[in-house]
Amino acid sequence: MDKAALNTASVMAPHHKAETVGSTLTVGLRSRPVVILNVSPEVDGGRYAIKREVGDTLVVAADVFKEGHDKLSVMLMVRRRDEKEWREVPMSCINSGLDRWQGQVVLTENTGYFYTVEAWSDVFESWRDEVKKKLAASVDVTLELIEGRDLVEDAAGRADAPGKKYLGEIIERFAAASYSEQCALLLSDELSAVMARWPDRGTASRYDLELEVFVDRVAARYAAWYEMFHRSQGTVPGQPATLKDCERRLPEIRDMGFDVIYFVPVHPIGRTHRKGPDNTLNAGPNDPGSPYAIGSEEGGHTALHKDLGTIDDFRHFVAAAASHGMEVALDFAIQCSPDHPWIKDHPDWFKFRPDGTIKYAENPPKKYQDIVNVDFYTSDQEGLWNEILNAFLFWIDLGVKIFRVDNPHTKPVPFWEWLIREIRVDHPDVIFLAEAFTRPPMMRILAKVGYSQSYSYFTWRNFKHEITEYLTELTQSPVAEYMRPNFFPTTPDILPEFLQNGGRHAFESRFVLASTLSSVYGIYNGYELCENAGVPGKEEYLHSEKYDYKVWDWDRPGNIKKLITTVNRIRRENPALHELTNLRFYKSSDDNILFYGKMTPDRSNMILIAVNLDPFDAHATNLEIPLYDLGLSEHDNYVVEDLITGAKHLWSGAHHHVQIGPDNNQAMILRVMPWHHVDFESPSF
Amino acid sequence: MDKAALNTASVMAPHHKAETVGSTLTVGLRSRPVVILNVSPEVDGGRYAIKREVGDTLVVAADVFKEGHDKLSVMLMVRRRDEKEWREVPMSCINSGLDRWQGQVVLTENTGYFYTVEAWSDVFESWRDEVKKKLAASVDVTLELIEGRDLVEDAAGRADAPGKKYLGEIIERFAAASYSEQCALLLSDELSAVMARWPDRGTASRYDLELEVFVDRVAARYAAWYEMFHRSQGTVPGQPATLKDCERRLPEIRDMGFDVIYFVPVHPIGRTHRKGPDNTLNAGPNDPGSPYAIGSEEGGHTALHKDLGTIDDFRHFVAAAASHGMEVALDFAIQCSPDHPWIKDHPDWFKFRPDGTIKYAENPPKKYQDIVNVDFYTSDQEGLWNEILNAFLFWIDLGVKIFRVDNPHTKPVPFWEWLIREIRVDHPDVIFLAEAFTRPPMMRILAKVGYSQSYSYFTWRNFKHEITEYLTELTQSPVAEYMRPNFFPTTPDILPEFLQNGGRHAFESRFVLASTLSSVYGIYNGYELCENAGVPGKEEYLHSEKYDYKVWDWDRPGNIKKLITTVNRIRRENPALHELTNLRFYKSSDDNILFYGKMTPDRSNMILIAVNLDPFDAHATNLEIPLYDLGLSEHDNYVVEDLITGAKHLWSGAHHHVQIGPDNNQAMILRVMPWHHVDFESPSF
Repeated sequence: MDKAALNTASVMAPHHKAETVGSTLTVGLRSRPVVILNVSPEVDGGRYAIKREVGDTLVVAADVFKEGHDKLSVMLMVRRRDEKEWREVPMSCINSGLDRWQGQVVLTENTGYFYTVEAWSDVFESWRDEVKKKLAASVDVTLELIEGRDLVEDAAGRADAPGKKYLGEIIERFAAASYSEQCALLLSDELSAVMARWPDRGTASRYDLELEVFVDRVAARYAAWYEMFHRSQGTVPGQPATLKDCERRLPEIRDMGFDVIYFVPVHPIGRTHRKGPDNTLNAGPNDPGSPYAIGSEEGGHTALHKDLGTIDDFRHFVAAAASHGMEVALDFAIQCSPDHPWIKDHPDWFKFRPDGTIKYAENPPKKYQDIVNVDFYTSDQEGLWNEILNAFLFWIDLGVKIFRVDNPHTKPVPFWEWLIREIRVDHPDVIFLAEAFTRPPMMRILAKVGYSQSYSYFTWRNFKHEITEYLTELTQSPVAEYMRPNFFPTTPDILPEFLQNGGRHAFESRFVLASTLSSVYGIYNGYELCENAGVPGKEEYLHSEKYDYKVWDWDRPGNIKKLITTVNRIRRENPALHELTNLRFYKSSDDNILFYGKMTPDRSNMILIAVNLDPFDAHATNLEIPLYDLGLSEHDNYVVEDLITGAKHLWSGAHHHVQIGPDNNQAMILRVMPWHHVDFESPSF
Repeated sequence: MDKAALNTASVMAPHHKAETVGSTLTVGLRSRPVVILNVSPEVDGGRYAIKREVGDTLVVAADVFKEGHDKLSVMLMVRRRDEKEWREVPMSCINSGLDRWQGQVVLTENTGYFYTVEAWSDVFESWRDEVKKKLAASVDVTLELIEGRDLVEDAAGRADAPGKKYLGEIIERFAAASYSEQCALLLSDELSAVMARWPDRGTASRYDLELEVFVDRVAARYAAWYEMFHRSQGTVPGQPATLKDCERRLPEIRDMGFDVIYFVPVHPIGRTHRKGPDNTLNAGPNDPGSPYAIGSEEGGHTALHKDLGTIDDFRHFVAAAASHGMEVALDFAIQCSPDHPWIKDHPDWFKFRPDGTIKYAENPPKKYQDIVNVDFYTSDQEGLWNEILNAFLFWIDLGVKIFRVDNPHTKPVPFWEWLIREIRVDHPDVIFLAEAFTRPPMMRILAKVGYSQSYSYFTWRNFKHEITEYLTELTQSPVAEYMRPNFFPTTPDILPEFLQNGGRHAFESRFVLASTLSSVYGIYNGYELCENAGVPGKEEYLHSEKYDYKVWDWDRPGNIKKLITTVNRIRRENPALHELTNLRFYKSSDDNILFYGKMTPDRSNMILIAVNLDPFDAHATNLEIPLYDLGLSEHDNYVVEDLITGAKHLWSGAHHHVQIGPDNNQAMILRVMPWHHVDFESPSF
């Protein structure tokens, strides 16, 4: 043990990165005296990227400390993933008792960035601090001044030409100066600033990990989606609609305020075991089948169903949507009808049974006879995975930059991590929504490996306690670093009991909740009509358009298009509603009234929202206005404007009584504006 | 992008270990379909070891899941750090909704272990589960039976000779069996057990990290320390005591129930700038100086102060302590008097100032003129660090296995990480106590890099709210995985205001708190005598023995040796008090009475403790007995025995009124024993 330097193995935990301990004990251990720990944000020890959006400020904090009393310099290091060089932003100590440091940087581009923390002893500032204390205690600092001068000389050796010149002059002046002049010379703020530019970073510590943040475009966080069942957008009963029919609806949907037109799968539909109306077996010759049974002789995942039109029509539709300020999202379901071309062309991508058939999808005893799954573990994994990648790229080339992915939790997690990273190399603007109605760990890992957005349990969270608890988790817990919920009150598969029973007022409440609790949400066509005919005892739509042709009257009486239009306008006009993690819940005395708010960090836009969760009765409640969060005192006046009705009120104090009931849209969306007091020092005339 | 397989870089985050993605896409991504995350316990992403003690059960939990509905096999993998092969313990699912798995292993040796988690799809159990569901739904499983038979054949290929034979017989019997016989054959529990022994682990996932647990001997967690100022153990005023004098006190200290005799530094004391009585400068020729000014012409860190005796006397003292069932701890202070031999022999280990002196220790404007520090960053780092290592090994060779390290927070953290690992290679039984009265992050990192125990803020936590909050953090938060507090109510440097003002009753309260809140604690000699003469306005002892000779009357009136003896006996006899993290706080209506408890997991030993925190007045309070934790119903009777007084009571229900006041030891330590009801089915005669 005498030559411990030779025994560096014992210093290293097995996972400990090699660079942490240098090639010899001397270099390795000397080089990292500053401890950097508890860096936040960080997901799973840096294994996964956090998410932000273009324009966001990334705030990074860390515990940074060293033995003794040295002053530290701490830098937030940031680089775009295609850059070699780090940019540095000084961090400052925000809690000296806990050695907590913080820094921030604005993320300006739609790409991945890396960030980490570096720190070193600031020898000159430590010297300066000690000398100042000694002078304050009237201690002679003659020796310290010589030591300080030597530090200036060291820095001059590291400086550029102008730096060398400046520091050289200091040293010359020092030589000729009196004791008190020497003190003034070496303790000046100006010298301190110059010295800070030429630190000795030979012993700087770097945090063990390089953490990643993926910066999406803003639409990943803020958008209103309209899910369109394309073949039901026509006017002739029993006939499929075309993309032209869909296109005709664009102005109406734009006027309601939506940003994204999201199509269920657009591909050819298989014939074998095709499902008939109401999910029956053995479809008739004119039944269209489920669009989730993908692929026929006409093609698979890169083909368009011929009823919809041609690829040129698709291109035209994308352009038409864009001209209305909207973009197109596609439902991408990696599954096949038994007639999918892959089965003939690549039988090795499927698992055949002892009788020569392919196992159809099932969740025993439920059966999906019209669907078979590829085998992601096929020996030709490279062929299959790349084919799927190419299918995504095919639609990306046609202008689709948003994919809602069907059932990603039934495919291997490493597949998604690979696929999403591959696509983002050239297409960082592509947004992926995971339709994973599954258990929390799988829901979270899909977000961690790259999904931009996630379906959520919102669909089944109806009451005050459960909404508060769930949304607090989504917006205030570590989950908020990497998961963005996209709130859908219904989907083609799910018509929740609450809406089946609650009728129009339930649709109103759930709409306001979806569109204001989350910054990104969507509705499935028919929602605006309050369509709520369900299969008795199930969460399914009666006569679902998944298996049939359907024609809607998009202006049918009882619709809530006016409310939708109003709320989408309110969303657009109020930047506080473009954010997710600024959600805060406030007190309302009645448990039927949910009260919450969002505001911008500078308080230039402050929104409070009260929603009646009871679809049947009106409820009166005391709202406790969060004066502290609003920056108001008990004595301040403030205007609240109900953005749905336009009514204004002049309030003061924290407690206000309101009634919200089925016949006034089930909600109040209040913008709060402090009433600026004009005092005698600044009269208005 | 067509050949994405060639582009694996995009799959990997930069910190992502190479083995996570294999040499080709196919192998790499196929091999890890099971996700293993959120392994606990884990400190800082596995960077630091957790701590346990010999005999502990290590419980490990993880989120483990995979796409789809496969059954999983999950193993806790454990190996001693000197072993290559992992031992495996099956984990079981403890929360299927959250995919949470748990396993446990008993840690039997005083050494480091590594642990991790491995998991794979259990193909046969998945098949069995599906077939059972189908049979329950009366679905024909003819094809499934053939697939099941194939799985048995695959397993036979992996099995050992007896396994091959057993499985081969199954396959033979299958061939001749009827449909229902085939079902019974393949679904039997016996076959399932054999199949579980020969799984296909070709695609098993391993958790990214190998986590470390360092298993100390039990004394790291459970011991009572007696800090002895050696030179004050004699009987002649103005004369230093010898180790022989110290030895004479051993029976008395053993009778009080202590396990560890802990000496302040035992080395020669410098002469230059020696401190005189009461920390004055310029000691007289007969003043002994502070034992923290280490080193003189007689030697340094490997020498014994000649007043104490010879190294043989030291050896004898260690043996004498051992014969009384006690061990010896040394105070190790890496600092030097200006006369330390290192200064002559290794001037390069020190930083000289422009005037040729070495900077003495200071915390401006405080000065420690009798102490200089080594420069841990010396160019001869290898020489200095190894010399310090050798000094530790010198005392270890003499039988010292516990070191209390002075001011470790003023030395580089990497030094400690290196030193402690080096020592533990051959001496895993050495215990290190960090005397780091400093900010929380430094206190924690010293524990993380290897310190077995830590000084704590207990010394200044006197009231209910602050004790509850602090002890909850120490015992229930992640800190408890790696930090063990050693509670000292006083030290040679610290006589807290509470004890200066509170007198004997304060000493009683603080003693019971130290010895029952923590499983390891210590007192500094004089505490048993309630010595509380302080320097006015400071936390220092008046006429501190740090700078003077002192003679004590160890049976002086007003001492609390009887209480100490009783409580140490209670600690020994009650295993619940040997643990730290089993501490729980309970409700007491009066804020002057702190009420808490500890119990063994099997409830065979259940202790409740009530302490009066007010040194001046008695207080009456309602204790809310934690019936649920005690396993009692509202109707059960239970005996409580006050272990200090021996009084017994028969109680039932949760609410009991007690008075605890200065004249009954300031505390009740209650052992709770359920009164076993003998019913008519098992009469006692």
